[in-house]
Amino acid sequence: MDHPASPDKPLSIHPDTLAIVDKARAEGLETVWDRAAAQEPQCGFCELGLSCRICVMGPCRIDPFGDSPQRGICGADAHIMVARNLARMIAAGAASHSDHGRDLVETLLAVSESRAPGYKIADAAKLDRLAAEFGVAAELAPLAKAKELALAMMEEYGIKKGYLTFTRRLPAARLEKWRTLGIEPRGIDWEVTEMMHRTHMGVDNDPVNLLVQALRVALSDGWGGSMIATEVSDILFGTPQPVASQVNLGVLKADQVNIILHGHSPLVSDTVAQAAQDPQLLARARELGAAGLNLVGLCCTGNEVLMRRGIPMAGNHLVQELALVTGAVEAMVVDYQCIMPSLGDLAACYHTKFYSTSPKAKFPGATHLPFSPENAQALGRQLVAQAVEDFARRRPERVLIPVTPVSQISGFSVEVIQTALGGTWDPLLNAIKAGQVRGAVGVVGCNNPKVVHDYGHTTLTRKLIEADILILDTGCAAVAHAKAGFKQLEAAALAGPGLRAVCQALGIPPVLHMGSCVDNTRIINLVAALAQALGVDLDQLPVAAAAPEWYSEKAATIASYAVACGIYTVLGVTPPVLGSSAVTDLLLNGLQGPLGATFAVEPDPAKAADLIINHVEAKRRALGLEAR
Amino acid sequence: MDHPASPDKPLSIHPDTLAIVDKARAEGLETVWDRAAAQEPQCGFCELGLSCRICVMGPCRIDPFGDSPQRGICGADAHIMVARNLARMIAAGAASHSDHGRDLVETLLAVSESRAPGYKIADAAKLDRLAAEFGVAAELAPLAKAKELALAMMEEYGIKKGYLTFTRRLPAARLEKWRTLGIEPRGIDWEVTEMMHRTHMGVDNDPVNLLVQALRVALSDGWGGSMIATEVSDILFGTPQPVASQVNLGVLKADQVNIILHGHSPLVSDTVAQAAQDPQLLARARELGAAGLNLVGLCCTGNEVLMRRGIPMAGNHLVQELALVTGAVEAMVVDYQCIMPSLGDLAACYHTKFYSTSPKAKFPGATHLPFSPENAQALGRQLVAQAVEDFARRRPERVLIPVTPVSQISGFSVEVIQTALGGTWDPLLNAIKAGQVRGAVGVVGCNNPKVVHDYGHTTLTRKLIEADILILDTGCAAVAHAKAGFKQLEAAALAGPGLRAVCQALGIPPVLHMGSCVDNTRIINLVAALAQALGVDLDQLPVAAAAPEWYSEKAATIASYAVACGIYTVLGVTPPVLGSSAVTDLLLNGLQGPLGATFAVEPDPAKAADLIINHVEAKRRALGLEAR
Repeated sequence: MDHPASPDKPLSIHPDTLAIVDKARAEGLETVWDRAAAQEPQCGFCELGLSCRICVMGPCRIDPFGDSPQRGICGADAHIMVARNLARMIAAGAASHSDHGRDLVETLLAVSESRAPGYKIADAAKLDRLAAEFGVAAELAPLAKAKELALAMMEEYGIKKGYLTFTRRLPAARLEKWRTLGIEPRGIDWEVTEMMHRTHMGVDNDPVNLLVQALRVALSDGWGGSMIATEVSDILFGTPQPVASQVNLGVLKADQVNIILHGHSPLVSDTVAQAAQDPQLLARARELGAAGLNLVGLCCTGNEVLMRRGIPMAGNHLVQELALVTGAVEAMVVDYQCIMPSLGDLAACYHTKFYSTSPKAKFPGATHLPFSPENAQALGRQLVAQAVEDFARRRPERVLIPVTPVSQISGFSVEVIQTALGGTWDPLLNAIKAGQVRGAVGVVGCNNPKVVHDYGHTTLTRKLIEADILILDTGCAAVAHAKAGFKQLEAAALAGPGLRAVCQALGIPPVLHMGSCVDNTRIINLVAALAQALGVDLDQLPVAAAAPEWYSEKAATIASYAVACGIYTVLGVTPPVLGSSAVTDLLLNGLQGPLGATFAVEPDPAKAADLIINHVEAKRRALGLEAR
Repeated sequence: MDHPASPDKPLSIHPDTLAIVDKARAEGLETVWDRAAAQEPQCGFCELGLSCRICVMGPCRIDPFGDSPQRGICGADAHIMVARNLARMIAAGAASHSDHGRDLVETLLAVSESRAPGYKIADAAKLDRLAAEFGVAAELAPLAKAKELALAMMEEYGIKKGYLTFTRRLPAARLEKWRTLGIEPRGIDWEVTEMMHRTHMGVDNDPVNLLVQALRVALSDGWGGSMIATEVSDILFGTPQPVASQVNLGVLKADQVNIILHGHSPLVSDTVAQAAQDPQLLARARELGAAGLNLVGLCCTGNEVLMRRGIPMAGNHLVQELALVTGAVEAMVVDYQCIMPSLGDLAACYHTKFYSTSPKAKFPGATHLPFSPENAQALGRQLVAQAVEDFARRRPERVLIPVTPVSQISGFSVEVIQTALGGTWDPLLNAIKAGQVRGAVGVVGCNNPKVVHDYGHTTLTRKLIEADILILDTGCAAVAHAKAGFKQLEAAALAGPGLRAVCQALGIPPVLHMGSCVDNTRIINLVAALAQALGVDLDQLPVAAAAPEWYSEKAATIASYAVACGIYTVLGVTPPVLGSSAVTDLLLNGLQGPLGATFAVEPDPAKAADLIINHVEAKRRALGLEAR
């Protein structure tokens, strides 16, 4: 694409993104790409993992060229330093997802105690299934059952129980591998805390021992905090069902009140969505000249409301600033995670109000209206009502909505996929055995200005579906795919002949949207279910994962639990580990023996596709299936 | 002191330290001071808190001189960046202490289930008191009571309870301040995890909100994890009583098997101490030509066994390497925290065996013999037995024990102080009211090669006792004071006339050793008890805290809980916060209103003494007491 603002290196593959970046530049506004450029050159010590600020004897650095110094003041060498830094990243990612899950459990408890107007048990069947899984008496009434389940889930965060309930969904062979390596996850918060302890100065100074615990922390996210977030969200807001919607900045409407829901939680966004259906508020909007109330999502809060309510998706991580630069937004409502602190400044350049709603997350320039289960319903209404009034303050001459939206189908929960297959995994397994579908790959993760926006996701995925590999996606990757049209039924035409036929037979696109980034648990649940159905361990399946444009500590954690589950995982951005040959080798090779999977790093998404295709075919071969 | 190796800047105030540094240099061995020199100049961005590695859009840096760039790629400014980095330090410190506490609770549970040979209920009266505090039925038999208490304490780590039991020891006024500020600590691991979440990219981007949570994390250490560590250690190993012992490298014996116990936990060190009393092992040592079995402590494991068993103390943080360079050590047994990973290399230069004993903490060059409650007794014996055999491998010509030890009195638990006062706080309060004792100050914390070894502690403390201020100490500071002779009864002569008279009347030194660094909880318990007795909040008392030579994240956490308790706290090493005027101002001034206390930073210990004396006198004045 010929983009005048950066002719030699386009920032994005998307016209909406490029057009609004142009607008931002014309209006003299700074975006993430400007700040990324200003940070060049980035610190080489930090990039390699070779700087340490863990104690105030330091800061320390290790010379990557082997000159002095080769040890920190405490005596830590490059391997220890890199391992500790990576371990803390993984701990922070696990903490983030898990603390999000905690908010859902607290809300479930509040619902069960009838102190959370605005929330209800939306999926009683799922409540029943989870209650049974956690040993809650089946005969209890729904609210009593919800209460016992919430309390049982709170035990997963503690230290008395000693193992995580959801791990019992896995094949025995996988649990045995974890036991052998010492990474069966115990309490969720426990694992995070122990990791922080072990990375303190003078505690764990063995890179392998550190990273083994980091895997356990990651598993306490995948089979703990994140999975609780996903499952409880389904109870409270409904298990996703296939839903048609739209994507890109064209989902903003020039003639309507536009409210953006951004962050990662369904809690506030759902009550905003409820309030947006209030006829009084709609009438007031019309009184002020608006044709309607238009809610749109961004990032993973967007994925939550897209999956369950069909609310259209404005964009992913690198689009969050640009959404404001359209000038068409009355309110940006955020909860937490991946929310750029630059948003307040940008909102102030327009009539846009920027609202923070989590007590855990305040932002410069934001109006802070903290959520609680008790006040959420009122808060939703307050936010919509204020946005309606602010429509009158919009300056139409500053509005640019540069594109028309792309249609997409979302909402592929594990339950939906199983039901679509007739209640059994056999049709999918048979398609895999027959070679029509070669395998399945989770393409997930964030955006990162180090990668041309959405180029990594879409390039990789296009090649994989051409090779008859079914794609499961979440997070920012899901938005990239949707904008590229991969989530329309017509996208079956982009797939290889085998996958195309399966998609056409089932009436599904070749890329199935499974949700937000906590919903990567849907992918591992699906993979675990397939392994159980086939009677194999997860690492034997022709599956893989990729995060072509990751930026977040959460992504490091997700990738780690994927590998610990036996899923080969290809990263498109190099983690800060190259300063240690030992850590790098452990990640790229050393985990194969104990876990049956490794990480790979490949910045070129086309080459990443080749790695993954080869992996899928090799796994097919090992299972005795026809392989290319 | 004229020290030929560094004539213009002595490394330490102690002859033992300087002599062995000379030996290390003569033998071509690297020590912490060499590595510190090699790290010069340290990174200015990191020192100021202005570098961020929280996500892989970065690393980012902010220019402290106000030139570009002023924001990280996400948009975080200097204040956000500094606050996040500091918050993670405090979280790691809390995690460390609290995970140590967890090990004690797990062992208490194992004892209660009769699967921990080598451990017992050593202080049944303390068990009874704590059981009552945690609502455990008084009529239970000791082991059943221990079990219920252990399980109740495990709840303190979880999220179901929602508050920490030990906080109920505080005056209502203090708890009310915490509630108002939103920092009443909840679950221990919960607070750590929430802090890690809130410091993820795009979560909490308000420096005040971040640091408020950091204070809550710190309180979950002080009134949670650390206090559990202290109290359960007392149950299992006895509440400390006054005990005479010795200190400095002279406690190593040229004619005996020397075993050093280093780290922070009493768990393995106690079973080693038990084994060292085994007549068979002693006989074998004699057979090999040793006059005896000599256990000595280092750092806080040393404090644990000093307080309860009178085992002499070899030194503090900066002496850990030097202890090996004496050439007289058969075994260095470590658990975790503050253990330099350089020890393996140094041990290998001698006949010394270096043993790691915690599954959470491996080290290069160490023989790893992981502890469990079940194996600890056997492990203790194995360690002593091997050390005895290794005596035969010692090379006497490489041994240098440069000094004779200094005597000290240790073991001043809160219980001992109260008993010594006749069971009531009145005599101490009366002495304070009368002005004989002006106030009390905790001088605590680590060593740091940025400070002349032990100069900060001893200079500060000497001035404070001269000003009639009673000193309570723990950790590395306690070792510094003992080496300076402050813990002998004769040290009363160094005190001002009022304090001197009190010390002589009670038969105590002017500096009371209260334990290891988790035992800073003894100090806050004492301060809380005095406040309760006087009917005031803690910030009204003429008390303060100081960490003149701190280096560890744990010290940052301790200082934070001290301030949150209302205790003015003076740091001798600048934390990495100067990059943010907002954070710096909050720490130095902003907490005074909500908490009644602030941090101060003063590298010159003589000036720090003046700050503290002025503070103590001001608090006296505010209470209506005579003030200077």
